[in-house]
Amino acid sequence: MIFLKTTPFLAAKDPGPSTRVALFGCPYDGTSSYRPGARFGPSAIREASQVLESYDPRTGSDLEGRDFCDLGDVEISPGDKADALSRIREAARKVLDMRQIPAALGGEHLITLPLVEAVLENYPDLVLLQFDAHLDLRNKYLGDALCHATVMRRVCDIMNPTRILRVGARSGILEEYEFARRYGTLNMTTDGSGLRDWIRDRPLYITVDMDVLDPAFCPGTGTPEPGGLTYCELETRLSQLQGVRVVGWDVVELAPHWDPSNISSIVAAKIVRTLLAITTVC
Amino acid sequence: MIFLKTTPFLAAKDPGPSTRVALFGCPYDGTSSYRPGARFGPSAIREASQVLESYDPRTGSDLEGRDFCDLGDVEISPGDKADALSRIREAARKVLDMRQIPAALGGEHLITLPLVEAVLENYPDLVLLQFDAHLDLRNKYLGDALCHATVMRRVCDIMNPTRILRVGARSGILEEYEFARRYGTLNMTTDGSGLRDWIRDRPLYITVDMDVLDPAFCPGTGTPEPGGLTYCELETRLSQLQGVRVVGWDVVELAPHWDPSNISSIVAAKIVRTLLAITTVC
Amino acid sequence: MIFLKTTPFLAAKDPGPSTRVALFGCPYDGTSSYRPGARFGPSAIREASQVLESYDPRTGSDLEGRDFCDLGDVEISPGDKADALSRIREAARKVLDMRQIPAALGGEHLITLPLVEAVLENYPDLVLLQFDAHLDLRNKYLGDALCHATVMRRVCDIMNPTRILRVGARSGILEEYEFARRYGTLNMTTDGSGLRDWIRDRPLYITVDMDVLDPAFCPGTGTPEPGGLTYCELETRLSQLQGVRVVGWDVVELAPHWDPSNISSIVAAKIVRTLLAITTVC
Amino acid sequence: MIFLKTTPFLAAKDPGPSTRVALFGCPYDGTSSYRPGARFGPSAIREASQVLESYDPRTGSDLEGRDFCDLGDVEISPGDKADALSRIREAARKVLDMRQIPAALGGEHLITLPLVEAVLENYPDLVLLQFDAHLDLRNKYLGDALCHATVMRRVCDIMNPTRILRVGARSGILEEYEFARRYGTLNMTTDGSGLRDWIRDRPLYITVDMDVLDPAFCPGTGTPEPGGLTYCELETRLSQLQGVRVVGWDVVELAPHWDPSNISSIVAAKIVRTLLAITTVC
Amino acid sequence: MIFLKTTPFLAAKDPGPSTRVALFGCPYDGTSSYRPGARFGPSAIREASQVLESYDPRTGSDLEGRDFCDLGDVEISPGDKADALSRIREAARKVLDMRQIPAALGGEHLITLPLVEAVLENYPDLVLLQFDAHLDLRNKYLGDALCHATVMRRVCDIMNPTRILRVGARSGILEEYEFARRYGTLNMTTDGSGLRDWIRDRPLYITVDMDVLDPAFCPGTGTPEPGGLTYCELETRLSQLQGVRVVGWDVVELAPHWDPSNISSIVAAKIVRTLLAITTVC
Amino acid sequence: MIFLKTTPFLAAKDPGPSTRVALFGCPYDGTSSYRPGARFGPSAIREASQVLESYDPRTGSDLEGRDFCDLGDVEISPGDKADALSRIREAARKVLDMRQIPAALGGEHLITLPLVEAVLENYPDLVLLQFDAHLDLRNKYLGDALCHATVMRRVCDIMNPTRILRVGARSGILEEYEFARRYGTLNMTTDGSGLRDWIRDRPLYITVDMDVLDPAFCPGTGTPEPGGLTYCELETRLSQLQGVRVVGWDVVELAPHWDPSNISSIVAAKIVRTLLAITTVC
Repeated sequence: MIFLKTTPFLAAKDPGPSTRVALFGCPYDGTSSYRPGARFGPSAIREASQVLESYDPRTGSDLEGRDFCDLGDVEISPGDKADALSRIREAARKVLDMRQIPAALGGEHLITLPLVEAVLENYPDLVLLQFDAHLDLRNKYLGDALCHATVMRRVCDIMNPTRILRVGARSGILEEYEFARRYGTLNMTTDGSGLRDWIRDRPLYITVDMDVLDPAFCPGTGTPEPGGLTYCELETRLSQLQGVRVVGWDVVELAPHWDPSNISSIVAAKIVRTLLAITTVC
Repeated sequence: MIFLKTTPFLAAKDPGPSTRVALFGCPYDGTSSYRPGARFGPSAIREASQVLESYDPRTGSDLEGRDFCDLGDVEISPGDKADALSRIREAARKVLDMRQIPAALGGEHLITLPLVEAVLENYPDLVLLQFDAHLDLRNKYLGDALCHATVMRRVCDIMNPTRILRVGARSGILEEYEFARRYGTLNMTTDGSGLRDWIRDRPLYITVDMDVLDPAFCPGTGTPEPGGLTYCELETRLSQLQGVRVVGWDVVELAPHWDPSNISSIVAAKIVRTLLAITTVC
Repeated sequence: MIFLKTTPFLAAKDPGPSTRVALFGCPYDGTSSYRPGARFGPSAIREASQVLESYDPRTGSDLEGRDFCDLGDVEISPGDKADALSRIREAARKVLDMRQIPAALGGEHLITLPLVEAVLENYPDLVLLQFDAHLDLRNKYLGDALCHATVMRRVCDIMNPTRILRVGARSGILEEYEFARRYGTLNMTTDGSGLRDWIRDRPLYITVDMDVLDPAFCPGTGTPEPGGLTYCELETRLSQLQGVRVVGWDVVELAPHWDPSNISSIVAAKIVRTLLAITTVC
Repeated sequence: MIFLKTTPFLAAKDPGPSTRVALFGCPYDGTSSYRPGARFGPSAIREASQVLESYDPRTGSDLEGRDFCDLGDVEISPGDKADALSRIREAARKVLDMRQIPAALGGEHLITLPLVEAVLENYPDLVLLQFDAHLDLRNKYLGDALCHATVMRRVCDIMNPTRILRVGARSGILEEYEFARRYGTLNMTTDGSGLRDWIRDRPLYITVDMDVLDPAFCPGTGTPEPGGLTYCELETRLSQLQGVRVVGWDVVELAPHWDPSNISSIVAAKIVRTLLAITTVC
Repeated sequence: MIFLKTTPFLAAKDPGPSTRVALFGCPYDGTSSYRPGARFGPSAIREASQVLESYDPRTGSDLEGRDFCDLGDVEISPGDKADALSRIREAARKVLDMRQIPAALGGEHLITLPLVEAVLENYPDLVLLQFDAHLDLRNKYLGDALCHATVMRRVCDIMNPTRILRVGARSGILEEYEFARRYGTLNMTTDGSGLRDWIRDRPLYITVDMDVLDPAFCPGTGTPEPGGLTYCELETRLSQLQGVRVVGWDVVELAPHWDPSNISSIVAAKIVRTLLAITTVC
Repeated sequence: MIFLKTTPFLAAKDPGPSTRVALFGCPYDGTSSYRPGARFGPSAIREASQVLESYDPRTGSDLEGRDFCDLGDVEISPGDKADALSRIREAARKVLDMRQIPAALGGEHLITLPLVEAVLENYPDLVLLQFDAHLDLRNKYLGDALCHATVMRRVCDIMNPTRILRVGARSGILEEYEFARRYGTLNMTTDGSGLRDWIRDRPLYITVDMDVLDPAFCPGTGTPEPGGLTYCELETRLSQLQGVRVVGWDVVELAPHWDPSNISSIVAAKIVRTLLAITTVC
């Protein structure tokens, strides 16, 4: 079987014909360069989801009864990167084949690459919104062309870089900034204006690297970068996506063991709740 | 004796005829549904108070010489809820009988019920200000009608729900939101305008659930809810209560062991210092 | 449904006609007097089980293929003790009705009472082996007759105290020691001689309170008591029970959050593995 | 007043004419060279004492009703070593003047010097038993002649080195080992034989540096040294002192914050309980 | 040798004729009154610097190639305050003699005194900018005239108090506030206007006490004071100093072990990066 | 340059013609299947070494003046396993070319493979002593033939399995145990007899996986396995190797962040000190 059984995310239904969003964990962190542990992200998010209510007073929506399921975790071999990425790609394809939206719980940011590969096969005109402290646009990092620090560059190999927009980026090397500026899509303006204009009615993939938040709000991540968004700022941005045609998403780089207070896991679970609210119907 | 001796809160005087505010700890957390440990709140607050100055430059007031005492902790049997609540009610009555203001260090939020019961006996026209991320207005929670998630509903059983105002509420189920809206007192407006108008000269009880703060500012609590107040926002709100007739207050839901950096305890102690400044005279 | 779905224990099979042992979690810790958190024990044990091999070189047995299942967690209301105990008793009865051995993951020690109640209904000549630092023989504790510190006294209310044997006891009050000595069964001699003689062919219930271990080996427990068994000593004792007719068992008082190194959870999981090896066949 | 009020140690009585042992905290750690924090030792020991029973089944003794009190903490200026030592000496003298046994909770090991100074004034034929991983016999350490690493050398300046016996010593520099060997009193033999012969009926001072234990049993200490005693070995040694004329003792170098599981504090509190049992009568 | 070799700060060059800024660690925390451990600050900052990029997208500057070196740590005797301060003064003098800017990594705040003493010898018209939650203007603290709580008062003994400006001050006793107000320099206005006007072209020393930040952003410090700056606010303030003639600076009071998530060390390292960017040229 | 500069291990000399042992760090943990973080091992061991004395009273030897150096860390790309192993092999070769003994600080256990490869080139009759809880003899693990769980099987591909002896092995799957038994070298007998007989005068490589210790003594490791050696037992075994011809060694699988008390790092540093004592001369 391709998925390992786990405690399900809050209010998840059993998979069925009406399932619209399929959650699955991708516990891979093999290329983490600083603080590993994102492999424990999926189980931490699921456990933390128990502390949340299914009802969201901001939007009036309730997860209870929504059409999403939790498939469990993709089985990963931590030391075999190519195999891990291949399995994640297969998992996403399987979900897409059933006309469901793949929604992945990372794991490190590299998992976004196979996910986007699979989604692109179905939505060639895909646009991508990256919430992230880092550009992840290096061509190579410590001699490695395929890792968490190069993942968005690899995504740019398979889709037009002008179709990627960023929120919260504040770290990278000169080469990355030059690359991003060349394609005119460095960072979304702070007030979010024009976001829907930019997306238009194109299918959207959302990747949320938890380090887009300031470390005060999410200390449990692999490469904390001071100076980020508050939780409220991030939630506001995500809420602005209500009504957009989202066809896939992931929440990555939660490394729960670096935060013994566990608030990072709860924050990640609440972001997942918000993304589920946006991408499901009741 | 009803109170167990403890290290006293910063600058507390021995009890005496001029005592206006009587602090006491209520180390009960028997109904915590997620992360227990609020029973350690009182001792953590007292220990953390040592890091604070008695002088508050914002208001120019100095705790040193103020007319408050620290009675120690109510002796609690962790597994006997009815008995625990009864002892807390007795402690509050004893304080009120001496014409002092009861000021309780929690413990979980359920302790507010016996405290309000005792205060209501003396002040039937009481109004209540609830700083809290959660409405705590469920009628039952996991089959239990008397727990931290139902406490304000039980308070509504004994006082008119329209006499309760909230700050920072952002979590609950639909039933709770409907209940709160029915009585028109959901949340205080963000800029605090009209707060004094609402209170008028009625006696006020203040309950501060530490989770009203964003988890970044107070990770050490039982049910952290992302998206809350900053410490400065909370302090500003509390300072607006200077001059109001406060007749009782509590600070609850500090669960210190979930925050190894211990900043949550220091934050709680500073909130207690501010409430003491508001409710004492020199 | 009575059981909440969870990530299963290592190598657990789906429930079926050949199931001999049925694991289930009892995440209750409402009467913990010192350090709460045993409610997180079941999920911590299951997660930690992933680090273990299914093969045990000491005995040559392999969990893979053994006839046991993991039913998930009993749904518990943390603040309603009577209800929680009733649900646990029902869960055990349900398991026993299917001619399976109930095997509970605590939770605090009080859960042993409803478990033994259910087992006694099927095995009136039950004997009990208690691995525990504490006698748990108080008649009342802090005014409460039904809590983790009185649980074995309550068990003695329903079965003859002479049918209980202890290993590792080293803490209690005079009253408890007098009670235990009166029935001549204080502590098993250190070298384990005569254990099988004492059990004979009577059905055996085993309760393992993690604090029987020295705190060095299991810091993550509610009431650590220095001077306990090493892990090897405990494993040796348990192995001596191979071949005995075990009809029920529990592993309680793991409070994982007090041990950030998480070795306590791994130790608990390995004890569960050993007990499963003793009570299943392949 | 010379002592600051604190939560008292388990079962301590109010000071009075029958008081035989007077506990007091010495929260000083100004010369710690590696991991500071022993200043939090006294409050951690007192809080941890609450988890212990007053009854000790090994000896059958019960602290409840014993003739000891807890005076609270000596007020210490962390940055003024000479003043801190002077205040500790005064505290011990005050206790001795009332014909009580001074029993100090450290704090770092340097506090033993002023304590022994005061005791020597009353008992010039004093002998000393040092439970410690380190010899603490350097003449200077990092240029400082008066610090935790030189404290026993300074003690040797005021009492004959041959009157000092050690248990558990396993670390030092060559100079210290040569000094200790020169006076023929390096380490007590492992089986404890001859200990009473050595003490005879001379008055005894006992200093227990928590690092005499292996770090597995007491990780929360300033300079952990692998290869130490188990808790049981230490308890056995202390129990052998029953009946000896003990005239003063201290338990030092608990640095509680380095052990988030808090077992070190509980171990220290149990050692204090044992020493109280030896030095009080009921 | 006066400096102990350490892992160097990110991108530091070997010392040489073109070196403009010389980093060195001052691992002293002997007078910490609350939570010690600032002695581990220098190594934590250096290790955390590895997670940062050398390129700063805000300013477009890159540390790589900048003219600064890392000399390692001043060798400190933790228990000998006078000696420790003397060694730090010597280290600063040595750096100044080579016409380099001394840049110190603390250590507690008291280390600022010998650093300013050395800088004043070269720049008698020095002005000082203090980022700090506390005024540190007591004349004595717990009987000690020379400690972290009196350090700025001692600085006022050697330079005119009107030449000191503060940012973020929010704690002190009445005496300190009166002293500060008397010299008209309490706190910089919040919007930073007039800062350059105040400095004019005078040589500037900058001292950053990490507790100027709100504890949410830097929990790992000795005396956390709720209500402080966000990281972004601090960075903005520091950036306003670009182009000012900075002749010395320090970053103090990081106590890394109080923050197991380690974000405090990363924040401190990023502040050091910003200060290096301001004070070096490429 | 191949080595990154670091804070050196206690008492290390600068590299030179008389250097006999060359320490270097291998911060690689890319295949960790459970708890990553061994990449932080080298820096944690070096920092912890500062708490140790250079003098060892058991043997009378002193590291000060011994002929060993610390080269710093091999630069590693975390996500490129082949490259990482290649760089470690090169580092070992470079050391061997200078007729020095390579002594590696891990890092995960997989680093032993390239180290043994390099040593075998110089010593074809090498024998190997493995201190380890796990056999690490799987042929594949989660689909990966080259990872921490297969490393000793890969070593068996390049040297005769009968030339490998184990200490402390207590975990593996049936396939591994069968492999080990087939070559008759499963585990050294407990009393160490015959060890020298077995080695004879053949060149010896020693690999110490920290998990050979019981988790109580070393909680900070990737795959803790209850039931291991005490620290004293391990030290005794290592001391029995005095005088043997050791030509290479490593200490691996310290994952320091899983042990906030940091005793694991100190234990690892002391093991390194012992191995340095055995393999150097003064």
